[in-house]
Amino acid sequence: MSKDSMDLKALFIGDKGENADLYKDMLNKLVDEHVGWRQNYMPQDMPVISEEDKQTEGYASSVNKMKSVLDEVSSKLRSESVPWHTAGRYLGHMNTETLMPAILAYQFAMLWNGNNVAYESSPATSQMEEEVGADFAQLLGLKDGWGHIVADGSLANLEGLWYARNMKSLPLAISEVVPEKVYGMSEWELLNMRMEDILDILDNVTDEQIDEIKSKSARSGKNLSKLGKWLVPQTKHYSWLKAADIIGIGLDQVVPIPVDSSYRIDVKELESLVRSLAADKTPILGVVGVVGSTEEGAVDPIHEIVKLREKLAKEKIYFYIHVDAAYGGYARSIFLDENNEVIPYEKLKETYKEYNIFNSDVTISRDVYDSFVAIGDCESVTIDPHKMGYIPYSAGGIGIKDIRMRNIISYFATYVFEKNSVAPSMLGAYILEGSKAGATAAAVWAAHHVLPLNVSGYGKLIGASIESATRFYNFLSDLEFNVNGRKVKVTPLINPDFNMVDYTFNEVGNTDLTVMNKLNHDFYDQASFVTGSLYSNEFMTSHTDFAIPDYGNSPFKYVSGLGFSKEEWEKVGKVTILRSSVMTPYLNNDKVADEYFNKIKSAMKSKLENILG
Amino acid sequence: MSKDSMDLKALFIGDKGENADLYKDMLNKLVDEHVGWRQNYMPQDMPVISEEDKQTEGYASSVNKMKSVLDEVSSKLRSESVPWHTAGRYLGHMNTETLMPAILAYQFAMLWNGNNVAYESSPATSQMEEEVGADFAQLLGLKDGWGHIVADGSLANLEGLWYARNMKSLPLAISEVVPEKVYGMSEWELLNMRMEDILDILDNVTDEQIDEIKSKSARSGKNLSKLGKWLVPQTKHYSWLKAADIIGIGLDQVVPIPVDSSYRIDVKELESLVRSLAADKTPILGVVGVVGSTEEGAVDPIHEIVKLREKLAKEKIYFYIHVDAAYGGYARSIFLDENNEVIPYEKLKETYKEYNIFNSDVTISRDVYDSFVAIGDCESVTIDPHKMGYIPYSAGGIGIKDIRMRNIISYFATYVFEKNSVAPSMLGAYILEGSKAGATAAAVWAAHHVLPLNVSGYGKLIGASIESATRFYNFLSDLEFNVNGRKVKVTPLINPDFNMVDYTFNEVGNTDLTVMNKLNHDFYDQASFVTGSLYSNEFMTSHTDFAIPDYGNSPFKYVSGLGFSKEEWEKVGKVTILRSSVMTPYLNNDKVADEYFNKIKSAMKSKLENILG
Repeated sequence: MSKDSMDLKALFIGDKGENADLYKDMLNKLVDEHVGWRQNYMPQDMPVISEEDKQTEGYASSVNKMKSVLDEVSSKLRSESVPWHTAGRYLGHMNTETLMPAILAYQFAMLWNGNNVAYESSPATSQMEEEVGADFAQLLGLKDGWGHIVADGSLANLEGLWYARNMKSLPLAISEVVPEKVYGMSEWELLNMRMEDILDILDNVTDEQIDEIKSKSARSGKNLSKLGKWLVPQTKHYSWLKAADIIGIGLDQVVPIPVDSSYRIDVKELESLVRSLAADKTPILGVVGVVGSTEEGAVDPIHEIVKLREKLAKEKIYFYIHVDAAYGGYARSIFLDENNEVIPYEKLKETYKEYNIFNSDVTISRDVYDSFVAIGDCESVTIDPHKMGYIPYSAGGIGIKDIRMRNIISYFATYVFEKNSVAPSMLGAYILEGSKAGATAAAVWAAHHVLPLNVSGYGKLIGASIESATRFYNFLSDLEFNVNGRKVKVTPLINPDFNMVDYTFNEVGNTDLTVMNKLNHDFYDQASFVTGSLYSNEFMTSHTDFAIPDYGNSPFKYVSGLGFSKEEWEKVGKVTILRSSVMTPYLNNDKVADEYFNKIKSAMKSKLENILG
Repeated sequence: MSKDSMDLKALFIGDKGENADLYKDMLNKLVDEHVGWRQNYMPQDMPVISEEDKQTEGYASSVNKMKSVLDEVSSKLRSESVPWHTAGRYLGHMNTETLMPAILAYQFAMLWNGNNVAYESSPATSQMEEEVGADFAQLLGLKDGWGHIVADGSLANLEGLWYARNMKSLPLAISEVVPEKVYGMSEWELLNMRMEDILDILDNVTDEQIDEIKSKSARSGKNLSKLGKWLVPQTKHYSWLKAADIIGIGLDQVVPIPVDSSYRIDVKELESLVRSLAADKTPILGVVGVVGSTEEGAVDPIHEIVKLREKLAKEKIYFYIHVDAAYGGYARSIFLDENNEVIPYEKLKETYKEYNIFNSDVTISRDVYDSFVAIGDCESVTIDPHKMGYIPYSAGGIGIKDIRMRNIISYFATYVFEKNSVAPSMLGAYILEGSKAGATAAAVWAAHHVLPLNVSGYGKLIGASIESATRFYNFLSDLEFNVNGRKVKVTPLINPDFNMVDYTFNEVGNTDLTVMNKLNHDFYDQASFVTGSLYSNEFMTSHTDFAIPDYGNSPFKYVSGLGFSKEEWEKVGKVTILRSSVMTPYLNNDKVADEYFNKIKSAMKSKLENILG
């Protein structure tokens, strides 16, 4: 294939089912292959369901019953679903079309119903999951790493925190079991050891000692309160609160890191936070950086966090870093060449030209690039195929930096690994979950094989989404409405780091923030399931609130730019925001964008008329 | 429909694809309905993929690429999958055909790709999940309860332990925030309050107080070590070790409960264990009872555990009970009449005759019945649709006894509940997980609607499995082989409580346990992926080890019955067992059973010849 031969238009069922015939042909071929497999299995065995069986009244009425139930399922789905398949009328949550090969692979593989908890139950899909895990590690730059599919990003975050908690506790356990290995180290030093150093020690003790060390680690229930603080961005996703609760370190150990007016971690603030904790001899269990925040699409400066860690390590302060790239993770593919090596920043423009990534002028900032590149220096990373991987739910994922880490949380002796070189014989022993659908692995595997995880494959899809978002952002930036003589202006929140476009409506001259919040909430009601059928709704979006308890004053720059005073901001304490994850791969060309932006404009106008009229 | 009109033969694709045409017709109808929905959405919007687009070289090569990848997926699945669709040649793990309506509903609903984390993203499937949760509660007898789908049973167990941990810690938090509500109670009394009493207190404080109490509960990270011991059956499933590790109470708090020679919890031993802990003023965080153990199909006497709790409550000793009915949960349907009321034990036989549940004489013991009935008295219950619900992976589930419990672990203010009467607007705030496939809810919903969760629906399917297991057990009980002049005898482990049939081969006269263990392990190798293609293997099964560290001497009765001495047992320390979960719904009639048992017999013989020959 030539460098621009991957055509995204071939990979989706299509907003109007344009590829439905293709989809159905492939589906039926696959189903026939499965049925043939059943038919040709031990042909000496007679079918247990005979033609006579099919003539009974019971059979007929059972078939009827099944058909009626499926009619009801169909009616419910068609009556009350979100039409995110549209090329442009749904710009809300992280939903759009998913990749046809992933859908097909899932629908096919589920007929075999493998359970990837154990290799024995699912040889084919267990191998696929092992390959997908290696894909995650490579995509994320985790060179000696490993990965696997997780049911969702909240669980992957929880698994990351589980790794961090148990890792951090190991040196204390080592000092009990093999004190000579950490001779002369203070408790502070033990709680600030580099991960590699800990793993190296474990390489040099016996299997029995490893088991004893593990049994005295945080898994015993001891020392949890000694491990220190878990630092998450102030705009904390509720999954981090849940995770700290579940893992037992507790919410009291969660410390917010201030974000700047771009909603990114403020690394100076992070440094002083860490230093002040260290001054009190409070260890830092770990720091979470978010790559693609769910509300703002913000990309935290992972490279600066890594650099800060290097600097502090010289002062015997060390922390685990978990990157929550549930949303953004797949976007790292746009920075990798066909050999999966990072493309130098200076070469991005020409590479994107070569691969036809963008149809218009789109620039990715150096900051964002540097952050993505640095992900590989962090201990664990959440990455969700069901977000920017365009895979159907549920498919989350995690990558870890060092494959040796997995034994820290495992429940079997180390020798089990040796038995099977392709995939662990019992994946369930090395992960948080138990039973898991082999079909998910088949879906992700198929997508990764159709679209390589670099600029020649996923990079194009991510590029289409980023370009669509840029176009939507530009469209909103100039937008103003005359609603029955009242002027209403649209103001995007920020030029986002990623494909999440936030914005508000405000009547020109309005200085009452409550009024503006109500206008935007009313708009959301008009643009969602709240008011009537989604199917006939001409524009749909989602919304969020930025409130002081979670955001501090980071939104004030924006709010102030809209003409609200500091007093007003402090009085109201929140701003209601409309929120569009622009995942559609279709708004990246002039014709489609113009068509849909005109339609969105007129739909917005009529909603505003309903509200203000 | 008449009482025996539900014909299970209509509900599966069939071991030889007998219903494949029916399946394909329904699948294509559903797919067409989905495609029609796309096509008729805003017909004024032109398709973004034009016929011209489809003529380009890039489109053609991308389609080719996709087709080749799917060919590869198909080849891998067909080459290395487990042929559990067979009516009788695979009797190993908990795998057999899954229900056609569930497969179809999943394949259909996944085209909409709803995310049940939030109602807004998935109105149709969120409502279905709410109904499925209510189904779980009703099936399990949790009268004021609630439930939801969980990715798998390990996570549902973890969620149960999370509930237990946070519930147990509440009285300590209450005594800090609203001490007047627990005036005069000692710490011991606080740690031994009945769940209902705790929830009643919360009904009588303000929302702000509830938030403060929650913030001082175990979610803060405090008091974890005060909560006491978590008691699990000695044969502990590794998911319980993981759960105790993850939840932060730690493995050191996990105490094994001895099991008897039927592999059930020994309630007398449990009582003395609880009393001796209480005598030391160590609270009991909770007790796990297993309904359908994964290795032995054992059903712990839940009714006796509940009774013991009632007795001890009078002595101010109280513990949470979690039932791990991941495997057995759905089997409670065989004890419910069409009004979903428990059928009196004395009426079971006649009811089963009326509904044609069994084709031969099958008796369910009073103990097992009583245990299932008592599930409704326990605080939380794991139940996996992807096990005895005959639903494809991944579909686990949980039921809780009192819907008020869900606020104990939630992350939003209580008022959010009021907004939406059908389903919580944000399910993700009340559960352990985040994003979750709406398609799973559609699959389970469809199955529950085709097969009601009582004797008229699922009861028949469960009955078919139990009868198939009984027949297999009887077949094994008489089995003996002459292998090149050597006599090899089969001995089932126990007459199982449920559909798990365990057994061993032993050469008559052999008194060396290591030799027997090797024979059975060699047999497993011959009957699994270990030796060559599964597709051409004429009989497949799974295996397990009962070793002293996990089982104590509970297997000795069996081992001794085989002629091994106590010294031999203690020297070798484990017995290798072959293990058949008999889930197939097809071996419940004479003709099919005879045919397959003959084939299994000859396959077993030829495997033994390979090993001993």
